Amino acid sequence: MLGWVKNYGGTELKGDLSAGLTVGVMLIPQGMAYAMIAGLPPIYGLYASTIPLILYAIFGTSRQLAVGPVAMVSLLTAAGIGALADGGTETYIALAIALALMVGVIQFLLGVFRLGFLVNFLSHPVISGFTSAAALIIGLSQLKHLLGVNIERSHHVHEIIIQAAEQFGAINWVTFAVGVGGIAIIMGVKRINKAIPGPLLAVLFGIMAVWGLGLTNSGVQIVGTVPEGLPSMVIPQVNMESMQSLLPIALTISLVGFMESIAVAKAIQAKHRNYKVIPNQELIGLGVANIGGAFFQSYPVTGGFSRTAVNDQAGAKTGMASIISAVLIILTLLFLTPLFYYLPKAILASVIMVAVFGLIDYKEAIHLWKSNRTDFVMLIVTFLATLSLGIEQGIGVGVILSLVMVIYRSTRPHYATLGRIPGTSFFRNTERFQELEERPDMLIFRFDADLYFANTNFFKEKLEEEAKAKGEALKYIIIGAESISYVDSSALHALEEILEEYREQGVHVVFTGVKGPLRDALNRAHLMDYFGANNFYISIQEAVAQLSKEEDPDATSSHKEYTLQTNL
Amino acid sequence: MLGWVKNYGGTELKGDLSAGLTVGVMLIPQGMAYAMIAGLPPIYGLYASTIPLILYAIFGTSRQLAVGPVAMVSLLTAAGIGALADGGTETYIALAIALALMVGVIQFLLGVFRLGFLVNFLSHPVISGFTSAAALIIGLSQLKHLLGVNIERSHHVHEIIIQAAEQFGAINWVTFAVGVGGIAIIMGVKRINKAIPGPLLAVLFGIMAVWGLGLTNSGVQIVGTVPEGLPSMVIPQVNMESMQSLLPIALTISLVGFMESIAVAKAIQAKHRNYKVIPNQELIGLGVANIGGAFFQSYPVTGGFSRTAVNDQAGAKTGMASIISAVLIILTLLFLTPLFYYLPKAILASVIMVAVFGLIDYKEAIHLWKSNRTDFVMLIVTFLATLSLGIEQGIGVGVILSLVMVIYRSTRPHYATLGRIPGTSFFRNTERFQELEERPDMLIFRFDADLYFANTNFFKEKLEEEAKAKGEALKYIIIGAESISYVDSSALHALEEILEEYREQGVHVVFTGVKGPLRDALNRAHLMDYFGANNFYISIQEAVAQLSKEEDPDATSSHKEYTLQTNL
Repeated sequence: MLGWVKNYGGTELKGDLSAGLTVGVMLIPQGMAYAMIAGLPPIYGLYASTIPLILYAIFGTSRQLAVGPVAMVSLLTAAGIGALADGGTETYIALAIALALMVGVIQFLLGVFRLGFLVNFLSHPVISGFTSAAALIIGLSQLKHLLGVNIERSHHVHEIIIQAAEQFGAINWVTFAVGVGGIAIIMGVKRINKAIPGPLLAVLFGIMAVWGLGLTNSGVQIVGTVPEGLPSMVIPQVNMESMQSLLPIALTISLVGFMESIAVAKAIQAKHRNYKVIPNQELIGLGVANIGGAFFQSYPVTGGFSRTAVNDQAGAKTGMASIISAVLIILTLLFLTPLFYYLPKAILASVIMVAVFGLIDYKEAIHLWKSNRTDFVMLIVTFLATLSLGIEQGIGVGVILSLVMVIYRSTRPHYATLGRIPGTSFFRNTERFQELEERPDMLIFRFDADLYFANTNFFKEKLEEEAKAKGEALKYIIIGAESISYVDSSALHALEEILEEYREQGVHVVFTGVKGPLRDALNRAHLMDYFGANNFYISIQEAVAQLSKEEDPDATSSHKEYTLQTNL
Repeated sequence: MLGWVKNYGGTELKGDLSAGLTVGVMLIPQGMAYAMIAGLPPIYGLYASTIPLILYAIFGTSRQLAVGPVAMVSLLTAAGIGALADGGTETYIALAIALALMVGVIQFLLGVFRLGFLVNFLSHPVISGFTSAAALIIGLSQLKHLLGVNIERSHHVHEIIIQAAEQFGAINWVTFAVGVGGIAIIMGVKRINKAIPGPLLAVLFGIMAVWGLGLTNSGVQIVGTVPEGLPSMVIPQVNMESMQSLLPIALTISLVGFMESIAVAKAIQAKHRNYKVIPNQELIGLGVANIGGAFFQSYPVTGGFSRTAVNDQAGAKTGMASIISAVLIILTLLFLTPLFYYLPKAILASVIMVAVFGLIDYKEAIHLWKSNRTDFVMLIVTFLATLSLGIEQGIGVGVILSLVMVIYRSTRPHYATLGRIPGTSFFRNTERFQELEERPDMLIFRFDADLYFANTNFFKEKLEEEAKAKGEALKYIIIGAESISYVDSSALHALEEILEEYREQGVHVVFTGVKGPLRDALNRAHLMDYFGANNFYISIQEAVAQLSKEEDPDATSSHKEYTLQTNL
């Protein structure tokens, strides 16, 4: 906040006022709808759109990020608390508020201890698969409101679909018509002019239709009495037992919420460049927003994709826009809640459905199928795991699987035997080019990864294979080390063994392009001397040239100092 | 076996006979002693030295590996079964035999499914820390036999030491003298002539002393009646419950046993080179040895360090040596077991202690302290975890910690900004060399690792930092990609963003030394065209030269085909 508050002037205020009001108008239906996803009475979505917004504006680093209730975090809240209490009960609400406090504390601590990098472990395919699955679950969870039937809460997509099919006869067609009307309004308005707040129009349409036509008599479910006034200050009730059972979901929300927030914050910041988004400070900002919110009956919040985009497009210049949005919600809470009495739940369901089905990212899946089969598998596995095992488990499976793949890949890295491009000093992979020059007495082996315990054997085996392929003629092995920037002690032991083995066989082993960190490691282990300084060359070209001078095996090059430099 | 049985002749037989008898003579005391570590009656060590040796000779690939009971696997057996039954009871013995069957099946399956590479995840420091700790635990577990006092079985070193100290008054000094005599004989003989079987001499000395001087009256514990005859064929008793509780230890023994075995087998094979050790076939060989052994009352076995070395030194040429050793043990079982009646347990303890204290590898710890601090920490953590948490947990902690370190390291890889070595075409790290030539309008940024989801942000941040350091003058960014051999979809998304960002700022971004796999990935994602073929150069030198020709920005090089080749 200190970044913008000093130079705040008329231009900023004009933009912020327009953006703040636009987002505030969006927040009213979205907040109520997302509270419904979370299994909470709609009013809690409005509560969560007050204090947290103001706190984030003070402590956060993004100037356009629109904090508040979002679909994904609401779903995670429902998934976490659903197992512990019945939706909408006192206990349920108390747990949701306690969860906000825990999420806030975790995010705050992650920020203080600079652990924001943890979010880097969520890879693109995992996020995409997870988001698509969560969107599907959220969308289907609203089916009961759209159809006006009673479907038990379930995180198993097939169960929801089966239940909906079984209850086909019980569908309340009036409710369904209202909901479809809402969807049509939101999507139609979006197509005509993006500046018109479609969801708010749908809300107005819904209220008018129910009130004007007396649709409650046809069984259309309405929001009913929405308590007037601001959220009261309460101390969140936290005990050891509930903390323990909420911890996994609190951790998931902390990271997923932060990820969603930082991704959109960075994308928007890249357009402005007049300030910097600092990930760990963002965590502190979100943490304070959640902690403070919890003391005013808020459930977990984070920065949302869609509202942030709208905020930016409507001209938000600073965090003041968020404060203006919050003030609009506060005014709504104070004076307008009676208006929502006739708001049909089907309209809130339509708001949610339009919002989340846009998140189902089948294009990324198609793109990955064509460009990276491994990442495609990650996406599909995360998607299916989220649908079948559950929300938190799905993302856990995705993260662990992608790390296992990283390890697995590093055990079988790329390597190549090289030959000279005729007439040049460049050496390339003999498997990719036909016309390269190779010498029968010389093996040029380039290993394309750091050498460490899990790929040392692979290195030995492949080098041996290639050396064997050269047969009896082999006199020189040139190890192209330009891609090796780290060796651990296991690998150094192996290098020593390899060198000894080939020396015994009368094969001369040299290294080329050895980088600083590798030189340091060799020196620290006193292996540079053991290998012999004359066996290090700045380039393959030079190694080949020098090794060819049989009569002068100890010739050194003019670039020795660059080849042998070490920071020790 | 098929490799050597055809050409078997006199020379081979001579070597094998000498080696087989030498190892057999070693096996008698070692087998009985190691059974004692495993918590089994000594005779089971001899049983485990019959059928498994013959089966390994048939199915294994090493010609010198001496399979049989070893200290580490015996300790693991005790650690696994000790929690389920009391040492030496019928149930305990049945569980040990069932464990051998499970280990055999696991090893066999690992071999069939070619999962031998799993052993690569045991890094050098982890093995060293684990071995040292296990040796300490094994050695101290024998203290009760050496001192003739009653110390309860414990895997916590400090508990054993405290108990021993408390029982100082109860020490049986005659027992202690016999044990120390045994240690003196074994170590003395080793110093004089390594060919004399010290342990066997100690055994003879022990039996003579107890029998001749009637030391049983002084309270010296003896082995007592050793049943005569061969192990009978029994079906191992395995049920679901015991299988479940034995599974973790069976997995640990399978991998640790295989690791010990393959390490020594490969080391010996490297000396001979007239055959090949095939890891997955080795797993099958050990698997069959354990499965077959389990049907003849054997507990888990593997190839041991010390006996294999002796086998080789004594001239073993083929697996026939192992068969001869087994025959010697069979003859011992048939005719010589009464001789062991007076064998004092203190002598077996002395055999064990001398064997295992040699395994405590403090030199490696000192070496790592000097050469690789991270690996030193791995060693110490594994050592302490093995001592404090337990045998299986210790190795688990070590493996997981080293994998976490691999991941962590890959999130913050090495990178460098480069400058030209004056008068050459080589570019080096500007932080390591003073006199390099740098241009104010050009950033040469070399990233030294594969780009993937967990280090993409790091790449972006560091590139941004370095670009910012160049200031307004920056016109060209050369990304030295010669160390990048893999990019995942997350990294490609990021590269796209980066390029777009710098293009907007009017900065020209080019890539040099892009390797085959990276070219393939870029092509598959249709990014090669997006980046522009003219922005790929074979070397930094060439990129610098071409970018300098301002008047001709589209000039391409003569090496384009090598820069742009792809396997797609």
